This record gives sequence, structure tokens and C-alpha cells, in this order.
Amino acid sequence: MVTLLKSARILDAERGTGDGTRVVDILVDGTKIGGISDRIDSREGISIFDASKYLVMPGFVNAHGHLAMTLLRGLADEVALDVWLKQYMFPREALMNGDDVYYGSLLGLAEGIMSGTTTFAEMYFFEDDVARAVEEAGVRANLSIGTSSLDDGLGKLEKSEEFVVRWNNKAEGRIKASFGPHAPYTASPAFVRGNFEHARDLGVIVQVHLHETRKEVEDFVAAYGASPITYYADQGFFDNPPAVLAAHCVHMDARDAHILEDAGASIALNIQSNLKLGSGIPDYRLLLESGVNLCVGTDGAASNDNLDMLEEVRTLGLVMRGSTKDASRISNASLFAMATSNGARALGFDGVGTLTEGAAADLVLWDLDDESLCPGNNAGSHLLWSANSRAVDSVMVAGSWVMEHRELSGIDLEKVRFEVGRRARRLANG
Amino acid sequence: MVTLLKSARILDAERGTGDGTRVVDILVDGTKIGGISDRIDSREGISIFDASKYLVMPGFVNAHGHLAMTLLRGLADEVALDVWLKQYMFPREALMNGDDVYYGSLLGLAEGIMSGTTTFAEMYFFEDDVARAVEEAGVRANLSIGTSSLDDGLGKLEKSEEFVVRWNNKAEGRIKASFGPHAPYTASPAFVRGNFEHARDLGVIVQVHLHETRKEVEDFVAAYGASPITYYADQGFFDNPPAVLAAHCVHMDARDAHILEDAGASIALNIQSNLKLGSGIPDYRLLLESGVNLCVGTDGAASNDNLDMLEEVRTLGLVMRGSTKDASRISNASLFAMATSNGARALGFDGVGTLTEGAAADLVLWDLDDESLCPGNNAGSHLLWSANSRAVDSVMVAGSWVMEHRELSGIDLEKVRFEVGRRARRLANG
Repeated sequence: MVTLLKSARILDAERGTGDGTRVVDILVDGTKIGGISDRIDSREGISIFDASKYLVMPGFVNAHGHLAMTLLRGLADEVALDVWLKQYMFPREALMNGDDVYYGSLLGLAEGIMSGTTTFAEMYFFEDDVARAVEEAGVRANLSIGTSSLDDGLGKLEKSEEFVVRWNNKAEGRIKASFGPHAPYTASPAFVRGNFEHARDLGVIVQVHLHETRKEVEDFVAAYGASPITYYADQGFFDNPPAVLAAHCVHMDARDAHILEDAGASIALNIQSNLKLGSGIPDYRLLLESGVNLCVGTDGAASNDNLDMLEEVRTLGLVMRGSTKDASRISNASLFAMATSNGARALGFDGVGTLTEGAAADLVLWDLDDESLCPGNNAGSHLLWSANSRAVDSVMVAGSWVMEHRELSGIDLEKVRFEVGRRARRLANG
Repeated sequence: MVTLLKSARILDAERGTGDGTRVVDILVDGTKIGGISDRIDSREGISIFDASKYLVMPGFVNAHGHLAMTLLRGLADEVALDVWLKQYMFPREALMNGDDVYYGSLLGLAEGIMSGTTTFAEMYFFEDDVARAVEEAGVRANLSIGTSSLDDGLGKLEKSEEFVVRWNNKAEGRIKASFGPHAPYTASPAFVRGNFEHARDLGVIVQVHLHETRKEVEDFVAAYGASPITYYADQGFFDNPPAVLAAHCVHMDARDAHILEDAGASIALNIQSNLKLGSGIPDYRLLLESGVNLCVGTDGAASNDNLDMLEEVRTLGLVMRGSTKDASRISNASLFAMATSNGARALGFDGVGTLTEGAAADLVLWDLDDESLCPGNNAGSHLLWSANSRAVDSVMVAGSWVMEHRELSGIDLEKVRFEVGRRARRLANG
């Protein structure tokens, strides 16, 4: 399919005028952007889309999350991570079935699409049902089974390996698969090592929670004599490593950051979840001065509590400035990159997250008439700091509309709300 | 006018079931809530509103802001307060006329209403034009002329006094007026003293920016030997004080907090503005342990950059937990109170900000079908931590609808966007 978006506004700091935008035509040829220029003539068989009302941006890449946790939203608001996880999440998760995860994931995907996200990182269980939801929703995702070795972990590596082989590069390349050893406090070093080795063999990434709370790091140091990151490095996990996507990284010292930089790792920052659970605020000077690829993730809806990437990157930018007492600490452009192209790189999606010829046609159309984008002094600034994510009008992934004028094409939202509602009630009652 | 809201859901921790809500009928009699109970029978002449789809909450009270700064949104994103104010704001504000302020204020009021705010604190200039906007929009506000003594301040106290006399308790009591000496770095102690004395004589409050940046406090200590708050107390400004609404208060020590507590003062916390300008993060342990009345404000749209109180109170709650590393530091109920009843108290509006018989009928109807309020595990938690402010369907102030099913009754939004757009372009070009 070939679509021509006529008269779209895009951000262009150099050639834009007034509000920092310029007007272009965008040709979408198959799954990619075939051209962007001042004027592209139509020809027979091309579908025309009048984009003159819209600011066109690359879709957000949500670099860390657990989609089906929409089912568990609002169950525990005033407790720290360890209590939240062990007393509230684990018992309910033990009651879930594959259809619960499927519908919970669909709600998460709907929320993401409706607020401008086109690519999702994901770690959970019944992951084949998550893959089914992603395939139907029409978006991109990198999926992993979250695994622990608390119950000895036997057979889990094999299950993860089978999942990766079954799903990697499926759904016309929209789905990638990966390994997901949960965290240093749930997965033994030997188990984590196994995940790294298998990921290396299969050429996929490892998603892992790292250094989320001070307690996690202190407990690990007490047991192994070094922080998780330092210990993993000493053990050689990061030699010729597969790409590592480390979530959280709230409590790191300079040595930890240096190790991740050398390993070519990416960090998914999850500031709203870290704040809400009282985990703390990262040392952003350290992170920004390191060469680590910084990305943005919402985490699951049970600790965030939504999957709104605009809200997430705005909070991140605000806290980066406020906690360092430096308003110039981070630029608007850098924040947009963290929420788009940096995340795509972390998840192994080449050519995703930018508005350039040859890049993936993963586009979000923001309604410039929305009052949250008024008065138009600076469209990029308004989007980042003022806009409401409901100003997202339409969303395209790999050249196909997944939402057109607020109507989802692959998800029956009314049914999903019904199913998630009744399943959540069942789980909440235990 | 008498309106009966049938089958509304309200939060009720004690008598609610499941999601923490119960279903009630709400009778609105004139400007007040005439009754709330399980069933209220209708009678002739009563207008019936089917509220069965909605969660009914008191309207937010935005306890600090400058409405017309919507005109200056997005002009400077990466600078600290002093540069932002002196190089970007003051020169544009010098070019504004009364109609600029009128239309800029209408846009701010529209944004506020559409995201659930019914009462606004305000400090700016051409304040009669702000009052005109507030009267038309149908909301409540406490208005002050922001005054400095940088140009000697002559005649300003008299102008403020005339404004207070002209507007206090007007618009059927929806408008209150107050004194607004801008800040310790723009208003001399003698000028601030004059404002306090006049406010005391007229029985109105004083709105003032206090202890916003470390530099403000340090410069003042260098000049006067004490922090602004301590110096004002030593000079007797806080003896038999008028009610004081201090905005920001980012950099205070225990003595400062104790003085404000003794003075019966209120603090309007403006976390998003403080973070964005790099002013810093308050010591929330100190604030929460003090007896000061804590409220929530958005500040102006040039440093926030929107007037969304839900986003503001969510960010406040998140940063309170994250910066103290304590997820139990603040309860959902306390955060709601800061954003509603505490603010009403600070602004001198008795009986505003609660859902009780006899209280003001300032109601916000949240659409429970909105996906951001799904799956309904806990309606209050979903509202505070997950909801999008676009789930606000209808808003009532003093018994009259100011927005019904997303249609504003007192503001022509299309015209306001047009007027603000062209006026903002004129100001941006200098």
C-alpha cells in the first residue's frame, strides 16, 4: 500500500519557521517512509491523507513494561517495591490464565497506541498470549518471558529459548523476542548467566531489572561482595555480550555506569514507577555524562499507573532538571530521542524512531488545533511540555493505520474494557 | 435553579464497595449542594441529570497561577528562573495590553475547566481584564495585581486597594480579591509591609512568591541578614496577619516553616514549575510534618507548561514519595485534599472543595468509561494515578454548568484560540 500524507507539519529546527515546524508531504511506501519533501505529486493507486491539521512525529518507543499489569492497576498505592511485589502482585499473578494476560495486554496496547506509542518492550508470562495481542493490535514489540530461579528455574531457559525461536522476527518483523531474567533478587547469577549465553547464541537481547532499589543492591553486595552490575561484569557476563536492556538503574555508582557503557548497554528509565514505589531518583548527572544509551519506559500499570509515554518523558525531563537544579541539563531534542530512536536501538529495531527517508513508517499525528498545543509559539516545546496525549489523532505502524481519527483498527476497545473489568474483579478478590 | 444528579458515583472509603465508590443522588439547590443520599425523589421544576456514567468529585482548586501566561508558553525552555523572568517574560509582558491579558486568561480558564478546575488563584496585571474573563467563564477566582517596587512602587498600593474594593466578593461571590506583592527580589520590605497592612485593613489575603530559588534566599540574606520569611516575621508582618498564601517555598529551613505555621499561612506547591526551571525540590518531610496548610498550584503556562491540575497533583505525589524514598509518605486522600479543600481554605472560599450537604456545588463529572479509569479496581486511585484529564465530561460551578459534555458555556474556545494565537505571535516577535 502506498499512502501520501499531504501538507503535514514536522519539526525542523533548521529550516522551520516561527513555531519550529515546516510543511511537507510524506510518502509511505509499504512499511517504510519512501520520501519526505516540500511537495510530492500523487499518482494513480496512491491513497491520499490530508495531514494539514497535524504535527507528524515518530511514534514513541516504550522501552520497559509489563502490558497485562493493567489488570492489577490500583491494587496497592502506598507500599514499597518488595511489599508491592510479594504481597500484592505475585499472589494475583499466580491466579492469571492466558486469556487474562491476552486481554490485559490488549488494554495496555490500546492505551499505548491512543497516546502515541508504536513500539513496546515487554516482559511477563503467558507471553504467547501477549504476542497474539501484539500481532492483532498491529504494533511493534520486543517480547520476553520474565523468568526467575526462585523455584530452581529448571526448564525455564529452554522455555525462553523456544519462545524466542517461535516469535523472533515474526508478524512481518514487527515482533522481536528476547530473554528476560527478572532481576538479581529473583534470578541467581548462574541463571542470569544462562540467559546471557542463550541470548548470545541466538543473537537477541537480554531484558533485565537492575539496581532498582537500594535494598536490592545492598542485599546483593552482602551475598556476593559486589553490586549486581559489577558482579556480572566480574563473572564475564558482559564479555562479547548480547545487547542488554537494563530497566530502572536507580542506584548505580560511577563504576556501574562505566561497566554498562563499555558493554554497549541501554538503560530504560522508569521515573514514574521509581517515584511512586519510593525507590528513589537516579543520579542524572552520572547517567547523562555516561555513554549509556538512555531510553524511557512506563513500567507496568500497577506501579505507574498508566502507559502514557508523553506523561512519562515529561516527568523524566522535569525531574532531571529539578533534581540536578539545572534547567539546561537536558534539551527537548534529547528527551524526544530517549523516547523514540534510543528506545528503538535498545530493542533492536533498526530504522525505527526517526522521520527520515527509508525509516519505518511508524507515525503519530498530533492535532495542532488541540488547546494543549496553543498558541503555537514552539510546536516541539508545546508537545513535550504542554500537550495532552489525547491530542493524538491517528497512528501508523509499518505503513498501516492502527488508529485513524481515534478509532483503533485492531482492538475492540469496548470488549477489552469489559473483559479486563470482569477478570480484574476475579483477581482482586483472590 | 434546582438540579438533581441521579445515580452518581462518589468516593466513599467507609460505605463504598469494591472500587471504593457508592451510588448516590445529589441535589443541587441554587449555588449549593442541597442533599446527598442514596435516593432523592424528584419533584416538579427540578432539572434531572443522569449521572450514572460518572464519578463526581469536587472541582480542583488551583492555588497559584498567572492565567494570561498562556500567551508566553514555550518561549524559553532551558533557562533558570532569573534569566527566564528578566530576559524572556518581562520584555514581552511590557508589550501586553488589556485585551491580550483577557484572551490569554480565557485560554487558561478554558484549559482549567476542561481538566476539572473550578477555582483559580491569580496574580498578574491588567487584572480588571482577568476579572472580566473569570466573570464570563463562570468560575471562582481570587485575583491580585502582581506588584513590584523595582520602579519605586509609587501609587501601586493605592491601585491594588482600589482593585480589591472594586472586585472583592463580586460576581455573586465567585470573585475574591487580594494583594499581590510579587516577591522578595522585586518588592522591598517596606513595600511588602504596606501590602500586609492594607490587606489587614480590608480583611483580604496576601499572595506572594516566597523562597522559590536558593539564589533568592541567599541574596536576601546577604542584604538583610535573614531569609525573607524570617525577616518578615522579625519585622512583625506576621503579627495579627491577614491570611498569607505563599507560593513555591522550595528552599525553607525548619525555622521558616515554623514561622509560616504560627502565622496560619498556606503554601501553594508548584512542583512542575520548580522542576522545569531547575529551582529544586522542597524538603517534603519538613513540609508534611509542619502544620502549614499545603495546596497545589500549576503556576503560569510559561513555566509548567499547562494548567492541568491532575497532572500537577500526580507529579507532586510522585516526587513527594520519590524524593523521600518513602512510598507511604503521602496518602491519596491527603493529595486530593491539597488539590481541593486546602486550596479553597487558602483562597478564603468557605464551603468549597468538599462533597457535603451545604457545600458549594462545584462539581466535576469524570467519565468512568474512559480507558484511563479501567479496570475499576479502585476508582480514587485510578483517578489520582492513572486518569487522563480529558476524562472530565462536565463541570459545574456554584450550581451552574460551565462545561456540559465537553462544551464550554461561557467561553468561545475557537475564537479564544484564534485571538491568543495572533497575539502570541505579535508578542513573540517583540
